[in-house]
Amino acid sequence: MPRYKLTIEYDGAPFVGWQRQDNGPSIQGALEDAVFAFCGEHVAVHGAGRTDTGVHALGQVAHLDLAAEKPVDTVQAAVNFHLKPNPIVVTEAAIAPADFHARFSATARRYRYLILNRRAPPALDRGRVWHVPVPLDAATMAEAARLLIGRHDFNSFRSAACQAASPLKTLDQLDVARDGDLIRIDVGARSFLHNQVRILVGTLQLVGRGQWSKQDVADALAARDRTRAGPTAPPQGLCLMAVRYDLAAAKHADIAVDDDQQEE
Amino acid sequence: MPRYKLTIEYDGAPFVGWQRQDNGPSIQGALEDAVFAFCGEHVAVHGAGRTDTGVHALGQVAHLDLAAEKPVDTVQAAVNFHLKPNPIVVTEAAIAPADFHARFSATARRYRYLILNRRAPPALDRGRVWHVPVPLDAATMAEAARLLIGRHDFNSFRSAACQAASPLKTLDQLDVARDGDLIRIDVGARSFLHNQVRILVGTLQLVGRGQWSKQDVADALAARDRTRAGPTAPPQGLCLMAVRYDLAAAKHADIAVDDDQQEE
Repeated sequence: MPRYKLTIEYDGAPFVGWQRQDNGPSIQGALEDAVFAFCGEHVAVHGAGRTDTGVHALGQVAHLDLAAEKPVDTVQAAVNFHLKPNPIVVTEAAIAPADFHARFSATARRYRYLILNRRAPPALDRGRVWHVPVPLDAATMAEAARLLIGRHDFNSFRSAACQAASPLKTLDQLDVARDGDLIRIDVGARSFLHNQVRILVGTLQLVGRGQWSKQDVADALAARDRTRAGPTAPPQGLCLMAVRYDLAAAKHADIAVDDDQQEE
Repeated sequence: MPRYKLTIEYDGAPFVGWQRQDNGPSIQGALEDAVFAFCGEHVAVHGAGRTDTGVHALGQVAHLDLAAEKPVDTVQAAVNFHLKPNPIVVTEAAIAPADFHARFSATARRYRYLILNRRAPPALDRGRVWHVPVPLDAATMAEAARLLIGRHDFNSFRSAACQAASPLKTLDQLDVARDGDLIRIDVGARSFLHNQVRILVGTLQLVGRGQWSKQDVADALAARDRTRAGPTAPPQGLCLMAVRYDLAAAKHADIAVDDDQQEE
């Protein structure tokens, strides 16, 4: 029973999120339906990150098993054909080892959050950015962001609905950079708590407005209390850029610590 | 009668193009309607470039005259309010000199064309890129592009419908660069012939596929015959990035040469 690894791009706007749910169309559901339309098999498609309603992906990764081995190019083309007209495409398909798991084998995830920081709302990038009309000081946001890098108890930065057993996470990257009217926030970690990236962004944005100092961010982290951090930034600015796998490292015992992760 | 200069961003997909026409909604028409809704004046909004159906803009420029002077922030906010729900926004409004003309005072225009060069169609960038599934050699495209820089008779690179009296244009920039699956083509000139950028892209793409040599491109230019150049690339990959004005230079006699320009 061959296992396939798919890399997937989607526009999150019309979906309730990655995960199949009763209340509307999901990316997982659309993929499972497309696989069924292609080969008549009812499969489970397991994703690396359970992106929320409206969150986008350029490099989501998922795995599935098919009864019979088919060429990867056939799998990619057929699934893409049956995904139409959904804004979801498989950008790559590959054969994976039998013990590969898109979620549990992942060793790093990278998200990008885009803030459009200008008076006028977006036209061309509507649905892809968070529009913040008041001026944000990106340099100070970048300084505050550095306080959050590293291994911390991120209890202040996860939603009440987060099911992860432990709020301990290691944030490897939290870069804030301005490019004209756009502020780009690049975030990397092995795994994230539920809504963690969006709460980090919502908090840094308070610093950018001058409402919060860097010390306020340090205090929010230390408080380990969701009510002490900033608001959850809206989903449309968020995009899952890439998921990394390092199959040798994945077997290392330390990795099990975060296995209960619940993604953005 | 104060003159206003507006910088405008739009998603070209739902429009018949910049210019007001009988066969569907135009960006110019939406702007003129929004100005009327705001202040009750029937004005003409003059654009720097008459973008075609489906072509986008991040930095279109237009001018209009109002009977009474109003603060630029009021003009911007009110026009944006009345533009909703069109994917058009005024990103900047300024008072302009009485002899400023968005089209005729322009001293440089910059377009960007995006090709998504991978097997899978776009999901997140649907409607923003031209999908070319066969591999393109961007480095060779960049070399061929350099043959087209400078002042030439671009008769091979304009549509049959082009109304410009002269096919002589000076191409200042034609850069081709790959960034992952995206090929970015940046094009700059004082003004362009109708469909010039899209025919340049359609031609370079033949070089990228290996179907044309660099010499074929030189021959197409020398032929001064539209049937000798490549196809017109589709509109959705094209975006008007910026229009430059240099009011001192605009008064220079040499500039009149291209006054009959017809934009993309």
